[in-house]
Amino acid sequence: MTLPAPAPLALTMGEPAGIGAEIAAAAWRLLRATGPAFVLLDDAARIAALPGGCPVERVATPEDAARAFPQALPVLHRPLPAPAVPGRPDPANAPAVIAAIAEAVALAQAGRVAGLVTNPIQKATLYAAGFAHPGHTEYLAELAGTGRPPVMLLACPSLRVVPVTIHLPLRRAIETLTTGAIVETARITAEALRRDFGIARPRLALAGLNPHAGEDGTMGTEDAAIVAPAVAALRAEGIEARGPLPADTMFTPRARAGYDAALGMYHDQALIPIKTLDMDGGVNVTLGLSVVRTSPDHGTALDIAGTGRADPGSLVAALRLAAEIAANRARAA
Amino acid sequence: MTLPAPAPLALTMGEPAGIGAEIAAAAWRLLRATGPAFVLLDDAARIAALPGGCPVERVATPEDAARAFPQALPVLHRPLPAPAVPGRPDPANAPAVIAAIAEAVALAQAGRVAGLVTNPIQKATLYAAGFAHPGHTEYLAELAGTGRPPVMLLACPSLRVVPVTIHLPLRRAIETLTTGAIVETARITAEALRRDFGIARPRLALAGLNPHAGEDGTMGTEDAAIVAPAVAALRAEGIEARGPLPADTMFTPRARAGYDAALGMYHDQALIPIKTLDMDGGVNVTLGLSVVRTSPDHGTALDIAGTGRADPGSLVAALRLAAEIAANRARAA
Repeated sequence: MTLPAPAPLALTMGEPAGIGAEIAAAAWRLLRATGPAFVLLDDAARIAALPGGCPVERVATPEDAARAFPQALPVLHRPLPAPAVPGRPDPANAPAVIAAIAEAVALAQAGRVAGLVTNPIQKATLYAAGFAHPGHTEYLAELAGTGRPPVMLLACPSLRVVPVTIHLPLRRAIETLTTGAIVETARITAEALRRDFGIARPRLALAGLNPHAGEDGTMGTEDAAIVAPAVAALRAEGIEARGPLPADTMFTPRARAGYDAALGMYHDQALIPIKTLDMDGGVNVTLGLSVVRTSPDHGTALDIAGTGRADPGSLVAALRLAAEIAANRARAA
Repeated sequence: MTLPAPAPLALTMGEPAGIGAEIAAAAWRLLRATGPAFVLLDDAARIAALPGGCPVERVATPEDAARAFPQALPVLHRPLPAPAVPGRPDPANAPAVIAAIAEAVALAQAGRVAGLVTNPIQKATLYAAGFAHPGHTEYLAELAGTGRPPVMLLACPSLRVVPVTIHLPLRRAIETLTTGAIVETARITAEALRRDFGIARPRLALAGLNPHAGEDGTMGTEDAAIVAPAVAALRAEGIEARGPLPADTMFTPRARAGYDAALGMYHDQALIPIKTLDMDGGVNVTLGLSVVRTSPDHGTALDIAGTGRADPGSLVAALRLAAEIAANRARAA
């Protein structure tokens, strides 16, 4: 008698002209002995033909994939209509890229995979093929939303950060920042720290918008008017939140020891510190979905695709973290 | 015959209720054998009475200080009118704090000290005593300006950064950012890298204002309209400048290897990465003055003043860097 293998993760192909296939193969080599097991949704023939070679097993189901994983990279074969040329995205392949995401979500929703890890996509190429969503996360929110805004959390071994506003011009980020949005983002973050990261009593640090968190109003009014009331509201509902804190001194080793996640008010305030610290590959986690989803925190790297130089570190970290989150959710359920 | 000792540095007292005196004594212990020599402008009696004890020599001139330095912390005795109580700034001492800065500048301008290093001040206390300048740097610009705006450069062993706008609300920083200000800041930075840091052909990296440096205009117009023309103008005058670059990926080890200084468009964009990386004590250098001026990149730390827990690392780094800049200027002259 063999015990049933745990559900594997689903890894999407991402942009076929990018580094997705080669880092998937490299991640399989690094994880085959230890797991977590994953199944790649991609064109099996092109994976088998990768320079350097990679043993591939075409599988019919995720269940087969978990069994095959120690011997070969399991692939749910989803053929590409056009050849995948490194560095040259072809809109003809866009429907397959999108379909892989949708299929991975469906597998996760059916409980047949433990979660999904998405390889980077090339947005412009998908737009050219008629993709109507601003990006990956928005598409996932449509497929697996929970009625709450999806929240982006970036994690590396020494830091977790969440930007309250994301892909907006800085001027618009300031104009659109509200106490309500900060509170809602912080709530979703605190819940995820509990459920997905197993932190019983999460501590949040909220950055001030202005230099020195406004220095008592001498450097901007938003910290007192918008951020401070959010901190007060969060504390009133029992969430351990501190702020607004001067953002420049929030990311020293001593400061980081005092919280489980830091909220930045805008993209660069959250992403500069983590990408500066992150030596081993950061991971992007989407909170507020009905399924577990992580991704590496880099792009398609068209400039080095096909050279074998791409570093699988962030993808490996994304696979490990997705498995950890899934396990924590299973324990909590 | 003894060779004349090189001119020492002048170290100002800063806020007497802060950590200035104790980190000065600690820095002297760390540097007495190796230099650089410095002379402290402070109340000699209170330095001699510091917990832990510190041998003090009251000197009459900077020249005497250089000779005394290996044996005792040399002090140009400038008595305080009121007792210095740790953690409790007294506006009665503000005139002495301000006078020490002015005297150090005068000594530097006369060539009797190699440069000045300023201990942190408590701005609110100086304001209460009638100090009419927004801060340290603006006061120094009045005393030792060169007709050009003073520029703040922060340096640690692995990074140098310069914010183009500094102590402004973020919204105002965006509104006031101009191509001209970026170009002038970059010019002053490039000149300082050559003259003060001995870098023959400085390479500058300019951050974009918006996320992803505006991503071709989809996330803000300022990068194309304001930052890019500055880079073009700098390159046209022979300065090796690159940008606008996405700020979040500018501070990885690989990215940092490609430039000698990074220009951030606003306070936190420049200060977050350096304070995040800076493990050994960063240094604040004021460019665009007629004299050499550095300072530790922390405040008065009133909360731990008098406990002996203050870390002298940043002050030691500031003293070393001031000596290095002075030596580079002397070589270049």
